Amino acid sequence: MSIKIQPEAIASLRGFEMPERLGFGTVMAPVMFRARYQDGRWSDGELIPYGPLALDPAAKVLHYAQSCFEGLKAYRCGSGVGLFRPERNAARMAHSAQRLCMPPVPETLFMDAVRVVVAHCAGLVPGNSGESLYIRPFLMGTQPDLSVTASRAYEFYVIASPSEAYHPGNMRLWVEREDSRAAVGGTGDAKVGGNYAASLLSISQLKARGYDQSLWLNPGNRRTVDELSGMNFFAVMDGALHTPALNGSILEGVTRESLLTLARDLGIEVHEREIDIDDLLKLVASGTCSEAFACGTAAIVSPISELGDSEQRYRLAQAPGPVATQLRQALLDIQEGRAEDRFGWMQMVQVARF
Amino acid sequence: MSIKIQPEAIASLRGFEMPERLGFGTVMAPVMFRARYQDGRWSDGELIPYGPLALDPAAKVLHYAQSCFEGLKAYRCGSGVGLFRPERNAARMAHSAQRLCMPPVPETLFMDAVRVVVAHCAGLVPGNSGESLYIRPFLMGTQPDLSVTASRAYEFYVIASPSEAYHPGNMRLWVEREDSRAAVGGTGDAKVGGNYAASLLSISQLKARGYDQSLWLNPGNRRTVDELSGMNFFAVMDGALHTPALNGSILEGVTRESLLTLARDLGIEVHEREIDIDDLLKLVASGTCSEAFACGTAAIVSPISELGDSEQRYRLAQAPGPVATQLRQALLDIQEGRAEDRFGWMQMVQVARF
Repeated sequence: MSIKIQPEAIASLRGFEMPERLGFGTVMAPVMFRARYQDGRWSDGELIPYGPLALDPAAKVLHYAQSCFEGLKAYRCGSGVGLFRPERNAARMAHSAQRLCMPPVPETLFMDAVRVVVAHCAGLVPGNSGESLYIRPFLMGTQPDLSVTASRAYEFYVIASPSEAYHPGNMRLWVEREDSRAAVGGTGDAKVGGNYAASLLSISQLKARGYDQSLWLNPGNRRTVDELSGMNFFAVMDGALHTPALNGSILEGVTRESLLTLARDLGIEVHEREIDIDDLLKLVASGTCSEAFACGTAAIVSPISELGDSEQRYRLAQAPGPVATQLRQALLDIQEGRAEDRFGWMQMVQVARF
Repeated sequence: MSIKIQPEAIASLRGFEMPERLGFGTVMAPVMFRARYQDGRWSDGELIPYGPLALDPAAKVLHYAQSCFEGLKAYRCGSGVGLFRPERNAARMAHSAQRLCMPPVPETLFMDAVRVVVAHCAGLVPGNSGESLYIRPFLMGTQPDLSVTASRAYEFYVIASPSEAYHPGNMRLWVEREDSRAAVGGTGDAKVGGNYAASLLSISQLKARGYDQSLWLNPGNRRTVDELSGMNFFAVMDGALHTPALNGSILEGVTRESLLTLARDLGIEVHEREIDIDDLLKLVASGTCSEAFACGTAAIVSPISELGDSEQRYRLAQAPGPVATQLRQALLDIQEGRAEDRFGWMQMVQVARF
């Protein structure tokens, strides 16, 4: 497909000044990609200035949450700019779209859209290790119609945000035994807004108690660990790495899969299995579980220092522990071009000149 | 609070022509109400022309589905225009907002907003029995910030749509045994987008098989009936009325509660209880369950003619049956002003002159 670069987009880029403090997801790049879907067809894409979207007040996305998104990053990789396994994000977004009855964004459209944004925002990729240009593709139903049916019109955007890592580390997790983020037979393995909306109350309540994130249990059995919101969970027990097996209510993280591959490569024993929360807490208390961490595109590898369950607090012996530190470094070394890309994970982007 | 009536809103109303065909939720009234929330305070409200909303591409509602809504109706009631139990919608919207960590819309703001829209759109309330002006209040998080936290800024709108009933009747339901609309500990008793998004795939698949709506089972036990999407379920067995008891994953319908009150008043035996789906299907097959219907603000009372479960089809003996017909008429007689409002359900609206 052809992508039209609006002259106003180039002007926005030329006029952009990078703020000193980045944080996560609050500084937005001054351009964005847009394509529209109507009558079974995708329009050509455009790179346009970042700015307000005009949405009909009856648009499906605003009432029935018919939208899905992805998160990936562009890194300063050696002397260039690289994307990390973006084809996996394209595939997952297609899966999420299908779950909510939306037309999947074709992989070529997804990749072209991400590339054109990164190519033009290469100058906005921050340079410190662990920082990056966070890329947020999203798809939403825009048809103005209050009936509970799938939209017939969609818009696909890619926005970008120069960002620090989402969590600096030493996270304190709250074992959430009441609320659920998604149902069995629900949308837990899709990256859709409803999962996140359902998690906000728990997150807000635990922050008031001094915790950082909810540890979600499986909504079917209420006793095995699923994930955090937007992050997967790992624990180290007797030197081996354990993570919940995919079960339909866990999001299949790109970082999760990459860490499993790196761990096996580094000779670390790996187990994807059901992790009973009560067993886990006992193993933390006894010291057999010596470290735990969360991972995700936004969070990278983020050590967990404590698990809170009702009145009990369980401190991890090592935070950060050696396994988290080793895996984080191995991952960043590939993403930032210091190590050979032995798994073919990086896709370098041709930087646009303007 | 004071509500500013924009002159452009009045001009939109004067220029509006009602289309001949209404359908449900597709013809939009030419004005809407808006109020904004920021820094812990609500702005004054405004009546403005209906038109596109300007939303930042990073607004929380578009990514994390932080939004909730309500549905109520204004009826031609005698010689005036009346609202049906709007205070219950205000209370439910406050509950939904709280579940998604949003500031509840104060009851006075909710009521003033609905009233000002109805007062100005009184001429758009259609006159045939079963038709009405459908009112859709909604609240959404608008802060541009990609972190998974509650928004600090919100917008509250009330839009309206002159509409026919949502379902004409004789619905065929599909017993959904795989997908869920909401989790135990999720958002099933809140009127939030994620529940509807999760239901779209099932609805789309069953339509391809000739059905109209999914009959959702409880996500915890997978064997008792919860509701339809946006409608509650009723069955008549040996002349008595049965409906699933509220259990945290069922939306507490205003029409549901009103029908229970009307039924008791009419001397019909009423049971709010767990309804096992396999028991229900057997009772339909034997004829003991002679009729079933769905109800909701949009659907009013909508008879069910068939339940489909895997390869089996279970036909209801009477569709519409006498109980559904009697209750529908009793409800509409109050809403449309033909019967005395013995329960104090109607609130008449002072029509605006312009």
